[in-house]
Amino acid sequence: MLESLEPIVSLAKRRGFIFPGSDIYGGLANSWDYGPLGAQMRMNIKTDWWKQIVEQRADMVGLDGAIMMNPKVWEASGHVDTFNDPLVECKKCNKRFRADTMSGDEKCLKGKDHELSEPRTFNLMFQTSLGKTGDDKGMAYLRPETAQAMFVNFKNVLDTTRKRLPFGIAQIGKAFRNEITPGNFIFRTLEFEQMEIEYFLEEENWEESFESWANWMEEWAASVGINTDMLHRLEVPKKELAHYSKRTLDFEFDFPFGTKELWGLAYRTDFDLKNHEKHSGESLVYSDPSDNKRKIVPHVVEPTFGVDRTLLAMLVSAYSEEEVKGEKRVVMKFKPHMAPYQVAVLPLSKKEELSGITQEIFEDLINTYRCEYDDTGSIGKRYRRQDEIGTPYCVTIDFDSLEDKAVTVRDRDTMEQERISIEELKSYFENKFN
Amino acid sequence: MLESLEPIVSLAKRRGFIFPGSDIYGGLANSWDYGPLGAQMRMNIKTDWWKQIVEQRADMVGLDGAIMMNPKVWEASGHVDTFNDPLVECKKCNKRFRADTMSGDEKCLKGKDHELSEPRTFNLMFQTSLGKTGDDKGMAYLRPETAQAMFVNFKNVLDTTRKRLPFGIAQIGKAFRNEITPGNFIFRTLEFEQMEIEYFLEEENWEESFESWANWMEEWAASVGINTDMLHRLEVPKKELAHYSKRTLDFEFDFPFGTKELWGLAYRTDFDLKNHEKHSGESLVYSDPSDNKRKIVPHVVEPTFGVDRTLLAMLVSAYSEEEVKGEKRVVMKFKPHMAPYQVAVLPLSKKEELSGITQEIFEDLINTYRCEYDDTGSIGKRYRRQDEIGTPYCVTIDFDSLEDKAVTVRDRDTMEQERISIEELKSYFENKFN
Repeated sequence: MLESLEPIVSLAKRRGFIFPGSDIYGGLANSWDYGPLGAQMRMNIKTDWWKQIVEQRADMVGLDGAIMMNPKVWEASGHVDTFNDPLVECKKCNKRFRADTMSGDEKCLKGKDHELSEPRTFNLMFQTSLGKTGDDKGMAYLRPETAQAMFVNFKNVLDTTRKRLPFGIAQIGKAFRNEITPGNFIFRTLEFEQMEIEYFLEEENWEESFESWANWMEEWAASVGINTDMLHRLEVPKKELAHYSKRTLDFEFDFPFGTKELWGLAYRTDFDLKNHEKHSGESLVYSDPSDNKRKIVPHVVEPTFGVDRTLLAMLVSAYSEEEVKGEKRVVMKFKPHMAPYQVAVLPLSKKEELSGITQEIFEDLINTYRCEYDDTGSIGKRYRRQDEIGTPYCVTIDFDSLEDKAVTVRDRDTMEQERISIEELKSYFENKFN
Repeated sequence: MLESLEPIVSLAKRRGFIFPGSDIYGGLANSWDYGPLGAQMRMNIKTDWWKQIVEQRADMVGLDGAIMMNPKVWEASGHVDTFNDPLVECKKCNKRFRADTMSGDEKCLKGKDHELSEPRTFNLMFQTSLGKTGDDKGMAYLRPETAQAMFVNFKNVLDTTRKRLPFGIAQIGKAFRNEITPGNFIFRTLEFEQMEIEYFLEEENWEESFESWANWMEEWAASVGINTDMLHRLEVPKKELAHYSKRTLDFEFDFPFGTKELWGLAYRTDFDLKNHEKHSGESLVYSDPSDNKRKIVPHVVEPTFGVDRTLLAMLVSAYSEEEVKGEKRVVMKFKPHMAPYQVAVLPLSKKEELSGITQEIFEDLINTYRCEYDDTGSIGKRYRRQDEIGTPYCVTIDFDSLEDKAVTVRDRDTMEQERISIEELKSYFENKFN
């Protein structure tokens, strides 16, 4: 078990998963850019989630709403009034702290001779101006969550898809929060990507649905390679519930910096639809076709996932150090479908003789799998690199390959090597990956 | 050929492709939310592009940079100084116009009795504040293009992937421009999604690469269902080139509101890397391993695609009206891999008898294809709906299906119907979709 994030941060930078944002300019506080491997894993996470949630379920549809919405949306949702951090400032050191947690998580207050200001509330939503020259008063927030687009479009979705309860709307997209205490690598950042579901149902069915989503979340965690021994359900105490929720389950994960929220599951009641009805003046009712068109405002169960935290939990879960022949071997044991590359194609030598056969194998495999080609350095070094980036299989082409029309396939986890005929390579991997 | 966007806008709203943003609040100017079908098509566009550009090429890697970057990035890129629109305001009607184009595209200036202000420059980048309470001066722009993240991370990518020239970095993500003249549905919006490539190479190879990317862009257009008869290359005249470009090709498309830019292909020379070297103080050279480590700053060819405009061109290309038995039939003739749904499963009746067999077929198909289930209304109405949302195949289960274990498969474009045994349905579609 990792006791610090440092090995992950270091490997992520060294191997191209995650770079500090605006790196050559000395960075931008708590901003990160995903490098080739991190970007691919984010893509893998999002497409897998979307496929399972939207494409393979008859009771779900997708949505892709704008980041900037009419500001009235955030009045109705309660974010303008209540999405605040109370901040205090020390008049001596000019540092600012959350007034509510400074005696808790905040480790910066070392001395006791601070002179603190009165708390001031600070809204976490970023603002920008749509105005042009002089007079325009156009102001917009960057959305602090993707959820609201699904409530605001509830009626549009209902009218165009004619789904019946229960059904859900899912969305993937960026959200922004001007946090006072960001940090821990990609755990808490000013911009982040959410994968959210609003599952609409009749009030009496919320508990059953809540339980079923909780189970799905754990199953999906396991399927993408999050160590479920490190994943815990935390029942959020009633007095700490967000303003819209009657029950919230945090899925906490044992990060090296503590056990912290990975995902959330909230029962939002009919809070949002009702508030949007009130503020917009539009009716957001559902007419039950099987019960004489009885009209109800549906209740909502909301499973929320962060792409960035999901990736961080996958990195932490996958990281392992082993001792092999007296040397440390670092391996990222990603699930094969989530690894940045699935197969590495490695000619033993750069010599002309191997290039034709290598090219053929590479071009054949890359139509089906995410493949990397690497001919730099010793084969041992290359294996070590593939272990560190979590490539499940290495295919080595050597001079014997020209004779026996076979290659060596090395398994990342067992380090076992098998000689496989080139002809059978595709079906070999078909079995491995399915 | 469509003479107005109206049929597309109307169908998009009616069927759930695209809704006005923040609809129940009277909208937000030029903001659009993608409904279930539009969101799925955006996902299809992005994953197809990413797969072909990043996953299936050995000379490309992906990246996913932050939307907010260190403001110095935008000084180096020239955006702070030159990404301006000169605006004039009429003192009588208070309307604002681009000073440079008002005699051209701007149709609002009807009378001649306007009294115009002096032009004022207006930067197109949105700003937001990272500051908390009082003193913080933290300002950030929302990126106006995704490109800069690829230049800023050039060295990080080079160091971690050890790619050799030529190679490219690709990115998909949101960008934001505070345009004075947005409009034409999703054609020009304040926020939009780009798919960009920076292809790094030796200066002497730029023309060859430029040509090869130009061809690829046309091939990809055809593959996703953009009518290439409506796609034209426009050589941007030297005096109209952006500040960073020595040659730019606009790919223009015959939209109903005029022939306008769909995608762009620019030769950006070494402008960006050189400027980032100067502003950041970091060396951004490439050492050629095959030429005694000769150091150069690579040149760049940049193919740029907009997800939103791609979708709009696909909608326009796919839209067709036919007369069938005296009635108008509207069909969206999407490419089968790009259609929101690939197969619709339609039980002829809601009767209990058909539900088991329908469910079995649906569950079998949905593992492989994006399927819709629909049991509402007459079969004719349902066919019409599937035509309008562009579903290539409808599978109808009728009472005979219980006897002959077969279903009717209807082809969207030919409207021909075939009786296919349920056992052979999967292999039937395998042939159709491959």
